[in-house]
Amino acid sequence: MKVLITGGAGFLGQRLARKLLARGYLTGRDDMRRDITQLTLIDMVAAPDFGDARVQVITGDIAEEAMLRQVIDRDTDSIFHLAAVVSGQAEADFDLGMRINLDASRSLLDVCRACGHQPKVIFTSSVAVYGGRLPVVVQDSTALNPQSSYGTQKAMSELLLNDYSRRGFVDGRVLRLPTISVRPGKPNQAASSFASGIIREPLGGEAAVCPVSPSLRLWLLSPRAAIDALIAGHEIAAAALHGSRTINLPGVSVTVGEMVAALTAVAGPAPAALISFVANPAVERIVNSWPGAWDSTRAIALGLRGDDSFESIVRAYMEEELGIL
Amino acid sequence: MKVLITGGAGFLGQRLARKLLARGYLTGRDDMRRDITQLTLIDMVAAPDFGDARVQVITGDIAEEAMLRQVIDRDTDSIFHLAAVVSGQAEADFDLGMRINLDASRSLLDVCRACGHQPKVIFTSSVAVYGGRLPVVVQDSTALNPQSSYGTQKAMSELLLNDYSRRGFVDGRVLRLPTISVRPGKPNQAASSFASGIIREPLGGEAAVCPVSPSLRLWLLSPRAAIDALIAGHEIAAAALHGSRTINLPGVSVTVGEMVAALTAVAGPAPAALISFVANPAVERIVNSWPGAWDSTRAIALGLRGDDSFESIVRAYMEEELGIL
Repeated sequence: MKVLITGGAGFLGQRLARKLLARGYLTGRDDMRRDITQLTLIDMVAAPDFGDARVQVITGDIAEEAMLRQVIDRDTDSIFHLAAVVSGQAEADFDLGMRINLDASRSLLDVCRACGHQPKVIFTSSVAVYGGRLPVVVQDSTALNPQSSYGTQKAMSELLLNDYSRRGFVDGRVLRLPTISVRPGKPNQAASSFASGIIREPLGGEAAVCPVSPSLRLWLLSPRAAIDALIAGHEIAAAALHGSRTINLPGVSVTVGEMVAALTAVAGPAPAALISFVANPAVERIVNSWPGAWDSTRAIALGLRGDDSFESIVRAYMEEELGIL
Repeated sequence: MKVLITGGAGFLGQRLARKLLARGYLTGRDDMRRDITQLTLIDMVAAPDFGDARVQVITGDIAEEAMLRQVIDRDTDSIFHLAAVVSGQAEADFDLGMRINLDASRSLLDVCRACGHQPKVIFTSSVAVYGGRLPVVVQDSTALNPQSSYGTQKAMSELLLNDYSRRGFVDGRVLRLPTISVRPGKPNQAASSFASGIIREPLGGEAAVCPVSPSLRLWLLSPRAAIDALIAGHEIAAAALHGSRTINLPGVSVTVGEMVAALTAVAGPAPAALISFVANPAVERIVNSWPGAWDSTRAIALGLRGDDSFESIVRAYMEEELGIL
């Protein structure tokens, strides 16, 4: 089977690609196990060389429908649509956010529709679709009220995925991801960048500035569990998704203060001493609007899993990315 | 002040125009009472001649951004954006629905944004944004889960209006209308067309076929109350709308059986004898997904009013449209 990953050069895209190549198969549109014969990665910048003949790397703008028509045809069985402009950037550059987070999603769905073969489309959404006055634990029945352009664009794309699925244009699955922590690499323009930075930088011996209060509650998922959830979300039988294509993934609910305590529990007191707290109102305004937890009963019933604790997330980061512990 | 009505040749558009012309003023962007000096009506077909020098009738396609740029400039104080493809038609012609119900709304907002003067935009949304498993009385906090392309397009436009307002591009107000009953004139392609037809046709001495069960519960608003709500929604001070620009308007919750009983109570037994029940699954699938009532505490606190009862709605229709009673 042929699989496409948009945002394939990104952090999650690369990790998903490695996992799919190692796994070698997915459930096809016919509900049969199918070997992955081609894995296409499209992104603005070239994905790295995987040294695997199944991989095809394409560089291009996914907001150009012509580009999408080149990489999606009737043989494309499954699409993991991960490409996005992150929250802080979408707030700073409204037009860019609309173009990538909304228009590209719609173009992708329209190209699938034109092919007429109902491919699986796995779309990643976000905590940022929620906002305003929220219950302590958000429910599937809780209204979306995004307080950022990023959240608005994700919420609109969720609606499209659901309607295109209802009409039989695609077999869509919207996975709402908790904030991913700990991301390796450099800080990015996501408002939630600190949720990785306050762990990653101190473990690398660098100072970290936390722009939010220690009392802020976050809903987190490790990169490893996120990739597992993307694949598990792909594997769910369409018949199990009646009513809604949108699934709130399991997460770990912790305050920033508890994150720092977990860091200390796993790595000793030295890293936490490198964290300073300097409030950033622009970041706080966005991040404070996100839920600190949501109910994931439906996700769990569908076989999706999160992490055990934030300590286990920190430990996994140290093992996988730093090669220690 | 200059006011624009999209869908100005439609039933609500014409009624709103007449009401605004008679009233003569609205609250301007400076929160001062301003005389209406120009009222522009744009629609696919020409609105009738109002015999009023303030009225400008424009025929054109509001999905063409160039057309919108002709009718919106920095002097446009307020826009009532009523133009829409109705639910049954948007389900039958997906592309047309997307074009008018979503793309035209976005173009209108983008033209306002380019002008840079933050006009008031009053947008009409619908019961159709809700669906799936719903509480008996839908709350402001209830998740949207549209089960039609019309509802999806309205929900997406609501999100846009909210984000464009939050960013200060427009001063938007989304008014979610209950199903309008009793509409005068002919049946249309709305899935809810019967909600007027089962009253209007029998009162005109004609047979009516009801495509849904007498037990179906509807959430209704008279045309008169809808127009009053559009104007009252325009008049709300922006500062009162913090948190969300979307308002669920008050309605009357009645079953189809209760509607028929009200018809009999007001007009005697003869009209109801003209109604026959023949189930139409395509209509039922859409209409059964809509809420039979929602909480309108916020709307009422903001000064918006509905009707007293369905009997009073029938009586008003007979007085205003038939000139009897």
